Amino acid sequence: MTTTNRSREIRLKARPQGDPTPALFELTESDVAVPRDGEALVRNLFMSVDPYMRGRMNDVESYTPPFALGEVLQGGAIGRVVESRAPGLAPGDLVTSNLGWREAFTAPASTLAKVADTTLPPSYYLGALGMPGLTAYVGVLDIAGMRAGETLFVSGAAGAVGSIAGQVAKVTGCRVIGSAGTDEKVRWLVDDLGFDAAFNYHDVDLEAALAEHAPGGIDGYFDNVGYEHLQSAITHMNDHGRIAACGSIAGYNAATPKPGPNNLSFVVRKRLTIRGFIVSDHVERRLAFVAEMSRWLAEGAVRPRETVVDGIERAPEAFMGLFDGANIGKMVVRLAPEA
Amino acid sequence: MTTTNRSREIRLKARPQGDPTPALFELTESDVAVPRDGEALVRNLFMSVDPYMRGRMNDVESYTPPFALGEVLQGGAIGRVVESRAPGLAPGDLVTSNLGWREAFTAPASTLAKVADTTLPPSYYLGALGMPGLTAYVGVLDIAGMRAGETLFVSGAAGAVGSIAGQVAKVTGCRVIGSAGTDEKVRWLVDDLGFDAAFNYHDVDLEAALAEHAPGGIDGYFDNVGYEHLQSAITHMNDHGRIAACGSIAGYNAATPKPGPNNLSFVVRKRLTIRGFIVSDHVERRLAFVAEMSRWLAEGAVRPRETVVDGIERAPEAFMGLFDGANIGKMVVRLAPEA
Repeated sequence: MTTTNRSREIRLKARPQGDPTPALFELTESDVAVPRDGEALVRNLFMSVDPYMRGRMNDVESYTPPFALGEVLQGGAIGRVVESRAPGLAPGDLVTSNLGWREAFTAPASTLAKVADTTLPPSYYLGALGMPGLTAYVGVLDIAGMRAGETLFVSGAAGAVGSIAGQVAKVTGCRVIGSAGTDEKVRWLVDDLGFDAAFNYHDVDLEAALAEHAPGGIDGYFDNVGYEHLQSAITHMNDHGRIAACGSIAGYNAATPKPGPNNLSFVVRKRLTIRGFIVSDHVERRLAFVAEMSRWLAEGAVRPRETVVDGIERAPEAFMGLFDGANIGKMVVRLAPEA
Repeated sequence: MTTTNRSREIRLKARPQGDPTPALFELTESDVAVPRDGEALVRNLFMSVDPYMRGRMNDVESYTPPFALGEVLQGGAIGRVVESRAPGLAPGDLVTSNLGWREAFTAPASTLAKVADTTLPPSYYLGALGMPGLTAYVGVLDIAGMRAGETLFVSGAAGAVGSIAGQVAKVTGCRVIGSAGTDEKVRWLVDDLGFDAAFNYHDVDLEAALAEHAPGGIDGYFDNVGYEHLQSAITHMNDHGRIAACGSIAGYNAATPKPGPNNLSFVVRKRLTIRGFIVSDHVERRLAFVAEMSRWLAEGAVRPRETVVDGIERAPEAFMGLFDGANIGKMVVRLAPEA
């Protein structure tokens, strides 16, 4: 298997100040080690780029440690075992790992998760069936506690997490309203995914748009954006409304902190709950999630969409595109032509 | 009982723009009706002034309807039955009601709650044993979910609610840190109430004060103030911290909305929960509260303090004083010399 013993990879060369730029990233190439006992050599098919990675590029302790300068970046990936010296792993097996941003690697089997059901597109394990899907599932059902008949507002609704969150809420029997950044995304949400309403937040006054599309108020808000979106959602929340705080992409690249909503007094008056969550705290929900999501995918009740960028050398571009709204659905980077 | 058939009362003459002023209030006098079947005539001993009343002075629907212009204001009061045509109520009985801001009134017995234990000072039923006490109890134990060994930060800690909240947390075995607006209040919190630390927020950088007094971070924050206090608390919250959002007095008189905390991204990163609550949603906790608080009062584990203003004509001054920090502990207005 001599074709697999080299791998190109992306290293973090500098920490971002504000918007990430191409100069932060470096494409390098290195040998892939021959597997020792308990290890497997994996060639990645797809790697994930996700907004949370922006936080790890800062030199700040958070729920995950910062990426180290000069090191290969990390992130979700799915690949195929090429060579194995680990029991239970054979060449051809599909495995997920956190060893994205590289074409191939050798790692202990304990860092790999074998994919049992190989009938679905492998990239789904980075999206609807992966971390973004579980985030959406936990956020909608557990954190926002959505129930049939209630209204959910999702910001960043055409993104990897938002688009699944809205579909999970629809399956649950909710009325779902989404915001997105292009007319094409808005059409996709309404025409293809069955959102009850959606709007392009660039074109509208957020307060007015929610007044129009949620005349009965909103019971849950799945927040991927923060700031103005959060403020407008708070204005339109019904009493006892729940906000699942998943992210605030509108602030990730801000060089200085942006002020928060000016209407937090509503949190008391309306007895709102704002609850931040991180998917890794909720792995106990994974089995239920995989079972339900697999069924919804099979039934066509959840229809994932992907934006695919080809080649490790374009991974930085794919990542930077997340902040420009370049993706519809899950942004993935295809690392192998066979995928 | 001809001495009881007149009552002075305070009416709302105009709605406040920003800080409340004496011109908003009008002292009037009127006859008190003779009780009919099912009614009692009550002479108030004490009335309560509370920050939430500021919200009801605006012409905005909230969890309670706005005060009507030209009408007598309302609020917690405790008084003595003078004349009764209601079964179960006899002259001399102590009753609480929402008919403060007046010296005497006649009302249906259904709007009155008879006080069973008359060994405690009557004014306690407007404070430690009343709405502020229940607010503190529910906020600390149910909303913030404080447990022994955890650290609670209380803002407005020398106020009616804050001072009880801190003491409830101390009884529960928590470390308690409070902020207040004068050195005298700070000394009271630490020397008399046994807070582990307290500081005068006028004199310190809030971030630095919390870093100094909560080196291990804070697990719960009882928010009576909002804004800068909320922002600093968020900075110093530990993972999975809980914020009981009780009020935001720093903004009640703002003519234009003030921006919120600039660090809400921590809500996700630290998995914080911010939960607004209103005591009237938690009346099912009243029995447990009265039982426990009565015991704590008897044991001296909770030691209420009051700032007493004499005379209905000074009720507006007492109310306005809440926003200047004129009160230590519960602000009450004494309406009868016997009290």
